[in-house]
Amino acid sequence: MRLCANSISVVYIFMEVKAKTLFNRRKMAHLLNDFSSGPLEIYRKKATFDWKKMKIFLDTEEIIEYQNELYEELKHHPILFSKPSSLDEEKRISSLRIFILNSIKQLSPFSNLNNLPKLVTNLVTLFQLDSATYAKYILASMMFPGALQSLGTTRHTDNLDKATQLEILGAYCLTEIGHGSNAKCIQTTATYDAKTQEFILNTPNFEAAKCWAGLLSQLATHAVVYAQVRTSDGTNHSLHPFLVNIRDPKTMQPYAGVIVGDMGEKIGLNGLDNGFLIFKNYRIPRTCLLNKTGDVSEDGQYVTPHRNPNKRYGASLGVLSAGRVSITSVSASNAAHALSIAIRYAAVRKQFGPEDSEEVSILEYQSHQHRLIPFLSVAYVLKIFGKFLMTTHYGFIIDATFGTGSDGNLLTDLGIELHAVSSASKPVSSWVVRDAVQECREACAGHGYLKAAGIGDIRNDHDANSTYEGENHVLIQQTSNWLLKFWPPILQGQTISSPLKSIDFLTNCLEILKTRCVVDNVDDFITPNNICNMYQWLTCYLLKISYEKCENLMKLEKLDSFWAKNESQVYYCKTLAVAYIQHFMIQRMLTTICEATDPQIKSVLTRLLSLYGIWSLEKHISTFYQGGYASGPLFARLIQDSLLKLCKSLKNDAVALVDVIAPPDFLIKSVLGQSDGMVYKHLEAAMVQAPGALERPKWWKEIVQLKNNTKSKL
Amino acid sequence: MRLCANSISVVYIFMEVKAKTLFNRRKMAHLLNDFSSGPLEIYRKKATFDWKKMKIFLDTEEIIEYQNELYEELKHHPILFSKPSSLDEEKRISSLRIFILNSIKQLSPFSNLNNLPKLVTNLVTLFQLDSATYAKYILASMMFPGALQSLGTTRHTDNLDKATQLEILGAYCLTEIGHGSNAKCIQTTATYDAKTQEFILNTPNFEAAKCWAGLLSQLATHAVVYAQVRTSDGTNHSLHPFLVNIRDPKTMQPYAGVIVGDMGEKIGLNGLDNGFLIFKNYRIPRTCLLNKTGDVSEDGQYVTPHRNPNKRYGASLGVLSAGRVSITSVSASNAAHALSIAIRYAAVRKQFGPEDSEEVSILEYQSHQHRLIPFLSVAYVLKIFGKFLMTTHYGFIIDATFGTGSDGNLLTDLGIELHAVSSASKPVSSWVVRDAVQECREACAGHGYLKAAGIGDIRNDHDANSTYEGENHVLIQQTSNWLLKFWPPILQGQTISSPLKSIDFLTNCLEILKTRCVVDNVDDFITPNNICNMYQWLTCYLLKISYEKCENLMKLEKLDSFWAKNESQVYYCKTLAVAYIQHFMIQRMLTTICEATDPQIKSVLTRLLSLYGIWSLEKHISTFYQGGYASGPLFARLIQDSLLKLCKSLKNDAVALVDVIAPPDFLIKSVLGQSDGMVYKHLEAAMVQAPGALERPKWWKEIVQLKNNTKSKL
Repeated sequence: MRLCANSISVVYIFMEVKAKTLFNRRKMAHLLNDFSSGPLEIYRKKATFDWKKMKIFLDTEEIIEYQNELYEELKHHPILFSKPSSLDEEKRISSLRIFILNSIKQLSPFSNLNNLPKLVTNLVTLFQLDSATYAKYILASMMFPGALQSLGTTRHTDNLDKATQLEILGAYCLTEIGHGSNAKCIQTTATYDAKTQEFILNTPNFEAAKCWAGLLSQLATHAVVYAQVRTSDGTNHSLHPFLVNIRDPKTMQPYAGVIVGDMGEKIGLNGLDNGFLIFKNYRIPRTCLLNKTGDVSEDGQYVTPHRNPNKRYGASLGVLSAGRVSITSVSASNAAHALSIAIRYAAVRKQFGPEDSEEVSILEYQSHQHRLIPFLSVAYVLKIFGKFLMTTHYGFIIDATFGTGSDGNLLTDLGIELHAVSSASKPVSSWVVRDAVQECREACAGHGYLKAAGIGDIRNDHDANSTYEGENHVLIQQTSNWLLKFWPPILQGQTISSPLKSIDFLTNCLEILKTRCVVDNVDDFITPNNICNMYQWLTCYLLKISYEKCENLMKLEKLDSFWAKNESQVYYCKTLAVAYIQHFMIQRMLTTICEATDPQIKSVLTRLLSLYGIWSLEKHISTFYQGGYASGPLFARLIQDSLLKLCKSLKNDAVALVDVIAPPDFLIKSVLGQSDGMVYKHLEAAMVQAPGALERPKWWKEIVQLKNNTKSKL
Repeated sequence: MRLCANSISVVYIFMEVKAKTLFNRRKMAHLLNDFSSGPLEIYRKKATFDWKKMKIFLDTEEIIEYQNELYEELKHHPILFSKPSSLDEEKRISSLRIFILNSIKQLSPFSNLNNLPKLVTNLVTLFQLDSATYAKYILASMMFPGALQSLGTTRHTDNLDKATQLEILGAYCLTEIGHGSNAKCIQTTATYDAKTQEFILNTPNFEAAKCWAGLLSQLATHAVVYAQVRTSDGTNHSLHPFLVNIRDPKTMQPYAGVIVGDMGEKIGLNGLDNGFLIFKNYRIPRTCLLNKTGDVSEDGQYVTPHRNPNKRYGASLGVLSAGRVSITSVSASNAAHALSIAIRYAAVRKQFGPEDSEEVSILEYQSHQHRLIPFLSVAYVLKIFGKFLMTTHYGFIIDATFGTGSDGNLLTDLGIELHAVSSASKPVSSWVVRDAVQECREACAGHGYLKAAGIGDIRNDHDANSTYEGENHVLIQQTSNWLLKFWPPILQGQTISSPLKSIDFLTNCLEILKTRCVVDNVDDFITPNNICNMYQWLTCYLLKISYEKCENLMKLEKLDSFWAKNESQVYYCKTLAVAYIQHFMIQRMLTTICEATDPQIKSVLTRLLSLYGIWSLEKHISTFYQGGYASGPLFARLIQDSLLKLCKSLKNDAVALVDVIAPPDFLIKSVLGQSDGMVYKHLEAAMVQAPGALERPKWWKEIVQLKNNTKSKL
């Protein structure tokens, strides 16, 4: 508990209602229903903690009440639960749904700014309901208006108001077929014609077609389009955003000079109408330029308002990271969703057993525990971290927008730190949950391969998280680049500090680097204190060797900075960013644990934290030996023994832990994962009641004929 | 090359035509067309070897010619390439396709028994064409007749003949909803009624419904059904197979007492009609019992022919493993398929670059190389191993069936070894290729998320390989159980040997366990010799500690053997089986390399082997330190440096390596992976030419209306 005394205070913790120490049983029963009895009861009774207390501790009564209201509201709209029968119908229903969501007061982007955890609740609930639809709704109601707000000026106010009401729908078009990550090389041009006071938009080739923008292929009448601005003198003034009318809002037909279409079927998220956009000498008025940071005058002069670009830099990074920031919570929710299915199934499913005994639940198998329970710890760590990150980020946005809160420099630093944090948290969360979902799929074996098990859909939708809002491998370099800057000040003995305190331990970096593993038993090894010590050494060591690797490549091997960075990613910079964010996630969970007063909740959360810590450290074991922190066989053995011990110690809590984070039955969309544990009943219903399941195929005569004459050619 | 001298000779290498040392250029050109010039040419020119020579070396001229003929034959049937527009249509087309396949002479299960590598070619080609259809075809043409052949007697000959011709289609029904892995607990009953000389089939509850059987839900008129046989005296004679008529072949309607239906939509393989089957007092004639190993006489006496059960044991295991055995080759093919797409795309796709220079191919990035190139080595290792395993297995089946070849004891031992090999090869192959395919998906970033990129479909179909033909985690215990038996003889100093020589090194186990890592530089570290040494130590060590762990759990902690095995899976028995099969795969690849005469081919294959070896060893690093084989920082660093060096050394060969193993363009089904490298041209065509891509949705008026009145409720 030493670390609790040192617990990290943070700049932003918004409106978080602390869980009360005296629980009112009646209120709890009102907020959270008991689960119906059934085959899961055995494990529920074995749990070492009260799942309702845990849920209230993590989510607060206020949020649970809010969530319940949201559930009731959603249930009023049958179209939110209809099952589309074709891809086109999927897009249509998803389109209708965004207007439903728009009619629900709680979901308005502006209604919860005084209680940011409610935004997390909205995000998680709606992504569980229908990821594609909620992505679509966010694009329509936040991304597009947000772009107009942050990029435009008063001359765009009218459109901003309409966009906010969903009277106009717009797409955000930056990415081109040939360029995603490297936005500087965008090729779409906007050439100013002073005679008509118009810009002429052109797509020089198919590689320059705008692509992947959501809403673009079917719904958008407008688009924010980034193009290289050229003035009459031939000067290129680099990339600027335009607000472009692309379709006639009355007929939904594209205007002449605009070619717009659909990207085609995707692996998942097919409700979202991702599109492409091509311009052929398409003329738009000069005032379409979203001119907050640069403009072209009527006579064709490029003008830019005088501002302090450095000061704005941090803030602008923060504004751009809204989507990225939310992916940690989305990932946490996907993990919780898939694990609810796999762990409930593992508790109910029985297979094999000792001779002459009943068969045992597959959750009793060491191998099965080791497959699933570490991912359960991941789901908890990410849930806590995702909420912290999102609320901190939105607090920052509010302060940056309204000029409230801290002073400008602190805000700039916070923006930069949030960018670094989210640039590592997004890849690390989306990767680990990709693996979690896949393991859940396989852990449900044959029945898990059914669409009705629900895990395939989670996987298909989750898959996109590794790619959009910044491709993971590209994005994570932002974090390591930021961290590397601290090495020279460390060498100079400077104090290192940041608003969220994610790097403050680096002040002691040189001391930390001298530490070695001195623990010799599992009980000491798994303490949060030891885990933090190990992670701090790991991060310091990776920072040192990554910096030195880059330097050596430049000085000794004469590489330029581009290739030096490139050649020091694997095992160095990339691992550095991963270790940094894992450590910060552990720190944040520790802060939460320190706030718990119920000893049983404290105990189970601490075991989850230890499991997450050791399980994540296991992947870095090579570095511990390489850097001399570990030597001899003991360290490797301690990691293994710790993991097996922690998995076993959480086995009886697994079902209750899942009960805390599971989607409600009406959102879980899985025959294997319902809270009553009646796996076979739901499976039977799904199989027997599926339309046409028991009928011969309509084309049965073709088969009879072919069988009767197997020698004939078709 | 010391190892080459010791190269492992094997019992069965069938009809393999050795690559000739003098290549006939004209013949090569006839067999293998040059690729059209385009953006991939740069990398093709950089390759250190001739891809055509490599292909001929690995596949032989005879097989390439055979494959070309098969390609031409397939192209004659347009229905094999049509794209179904719904799930029902997918099943229908797949059903029609199996009759097409049945009409193609090369694909007959019996036409290639004198040239087993052709069977591998069929498997790989047809799985690339349409996995669901080929699975369906194999079930119809091999699995069902094979079951009749191996389980039935003369009284089933008529059905066997018809099944072989596909005049009757049958499903193989063992698994039940509640029991897959633990087949002993199957609950379906077959009670003998001596009065009518019938068995009465019953499904006591939904958990006892037969399920997952392919062909069952739509096509099968017959089924091989496993049920607990009960005679009139109430005795249960355990599980026996029956040949059951389930549907009227004229109407395709199920008979009264039979409920048969579809499992519902799956994650992949939706062309395959997996079904479920329930019996309600369904009476079948006594002679339906497939009575090779046990029968019930007319008057209700259970009889079993006198045989040597031990001798038959090995052979029967071998017979059952046909599906499992093929999964290594299927996995190799899926890896080759996905990697062809991702590596060609990585060569063409350019993003970022040094300041003021052109952008560079993403294949130039260290991080990208490290993501993809180890999996390329996996594809080669599995291709070679899969062919070895399949040809050896079929040779064994032929000998077991026709009594040819070696003596009975050797055949029994071979059957047992093949069972152990395939029980580890199937999980290890399917897992690593699952990761390969996912990495390829992510490496293609946004465009990789398009269905048109093709990787999503590979993933969905491949996913089933972890589950069917023996759930991976359950199956792999078969291998470790077999290996553990050798520890006591090792301690007694006995010579250890097996027909395929996969465990012969265990004879020196105690000596090997004394070895330590003495290599101190990358060049020596990556030699096949050193890699084999490391793997042999690893396997010996894991064998020792797994055996001791089990023993200790039983002796010291008083666990029964069931729980002792259970508690020694993770880090012990499971890892033992993985290490064993990885070592054997390396051995087999080394044998192949030793046969190469072209030094360039030898060089690139050796680098691939080293990469596979080190990359796989990296995941065992903990064990090397735990067991004292490694100590100090050097070992960890050598692994990392070796991997980066090998990836870099293979970077310029990657495109040519993919050219060797890629599906032909007409089977690759990916806009990103065509051999001409014209990624953007194919992407444009797919996007712009998709039906309706450029049209407004049919339901556009609904959207206009909703936008015009965003405040109204739907």
